[in-house]
Amino acid sequence: MLKNIRIVLVDTSHPGNIGAAARAMKNMSLRQLHLVTPQHYPHQEATSRASGADDLLNNARVAGSLDEALTGCRLVVGTSARTRSIDWPIVTPREAAAKLVQEARSGDVALVFGRERSGLTNSELDRCTFLVHIPTNEDYSSLNLGAAVQILAYEIYLAQQQDPTVKSDSQRDLATADMLQGFHEHLAQALDDIGFTDPRQSQKLLRRLRSLFQRARPDKDEINIMRGILSAMQGRKSMRR
Amino acid sequence: MLKNIRIVLVDTSHPGNIGAAARAMKNMSLRQLHLVTPQHYPHQEATSRASGADDLLNNARVAGSLDEALTGCRLVVGTSARTRSIDWPIVTPREAAAKLVQEARSGDVALVFGRERSGLTNSELDRCTFLVHIPTNEDYSSLNLGAAVQILAYEIYLAQQQDPTVKSDSQRDLATADMLQGFHEHLAQALDDIGFTDPRQSQKLLRRLRSLFQRARPDKDEINIMRGILSAMQGRKSMRR
Repeated sequence: MLKNIRIVLVDTSHPGNIGAAARAMKNMSLRQLHLVTPQHYPHQEATSRASGADDLLNNARVAGSLDEALTGCRLVVGTSARTRSIDWPIVTPREAAAKLVQEARSGDVALVFGRERSGLTNSELDRCTFLVHIPTNEDYSSLNLGAAVQILAYEIYLAQQQDPTVKSDSQRDLATADMLQGFHEHLAQALDDIGFTDPRQSQKLLRRLRSLFQRARPDKDEINIMRGILSAMQGRKSMRR
Repeated sequence: MLKNIRIVLVDTSHPGNIGAAARAMKNMSLRQLHLVTPQHYPHQEATSRASGADDLLNNARVAGSLDEALTGCRLVVGTSARTRSIDWPIVTPREAAAKLVQEARSGDVALVFGRERSGLTNSELDRCTFLVHIPTNEDYSSLNLGAAVQILAYEIYLAQQQDPTVKSDSQRDLATADMLQGFHEHLAQALDDIGFTDPRQSQKLLRRLRSLFQRARPDKDEINIMRGILSAMQGRKSMRR
């Protein structure tokens, strides 16, 4: 089950943090490390800090983009140090862990960590089904990347030790991250085609819609239906039903 | 309350771990760092890894013995990576945190971490009221010292927190039942207008879409946006944004 949980590190600056993350993961029985455009990798400092978890480093997958690292994932949880203006569901580490473990029974899921200084960009956060915020001292809230991985890996390990009842979402054939991204690109195009989007507002509007559909957690059929509607809106007859 | 909680590091080999512990503590609003016979301290690597928590390092107290560092403490909790032969009460991090926070209301308490390689000696463990064990992968159980401090500091911070940071649906301005019903009627009409719905299947399709939007629990703004899109689909310009 834990083998289905990907830890995704985006644009990491310090190779030591990659090593610390690998060690934290292995301590908590997580195995799948994905590195999106790491700045220095492989690196001696990563291996040194991994301290015996170098098998995780050797098996880590390096991806050219976040979307690539998320391919096939049915649930994507992003880490966020702050509250955003748009309402996006934010949960505690404990809640996120329970959800990740539960959904990992049915397929791949991802937990995404951003850059050391600046975290995830808005567009990266938009890829996430929901966000997790680690509670910290408000006057000194910037956790070390390895420490953040450690806290969440620990909560995941605890969640997996318990025996949660399987809830409905894990039984649904949820759309994967790449299917959702394809849908949102189609949606943007279709709204443009029917003249709905005001260029000054379209980014905000699209993020709003993204938030709505992330909450709904559409399954694969529903994405096909919605894309059929979009195609019909565009006046094409390529309905996929 | 948290100011009464001492983090005591015994005989630490790597100054980087002292810095990481200071940062982990400050992130979680702990202030009192006690160092028992650290092998290299002060040290540039400690300051570098503390990354802004150097005030904790500057105020750290260096003690010549564990007993000296524990002076005045009403509760002493020791960290242990293993189960000992002698029966000693062992609790989870969550239970230890609750106990530490509760007792810290009344006076000083201590949480003690041992050497990187060998932990606390039996004689040091004997100084403890009880022991805490962080659950880990049995095949790779050796946590980094800074990571262990981070997990326990996090649990202490949570234990002391009264209100969680979760945004609940009750804080959002959810659409009312009548707004939702109006939206679904509009949706049915719009799909019909663009020739999307197959009469034989439309009831099933509409129920499918209804289930999707029920799950999302749209707020009032979102319903207005969606109705604007529907109007645009229908070729009307009565956008309600």
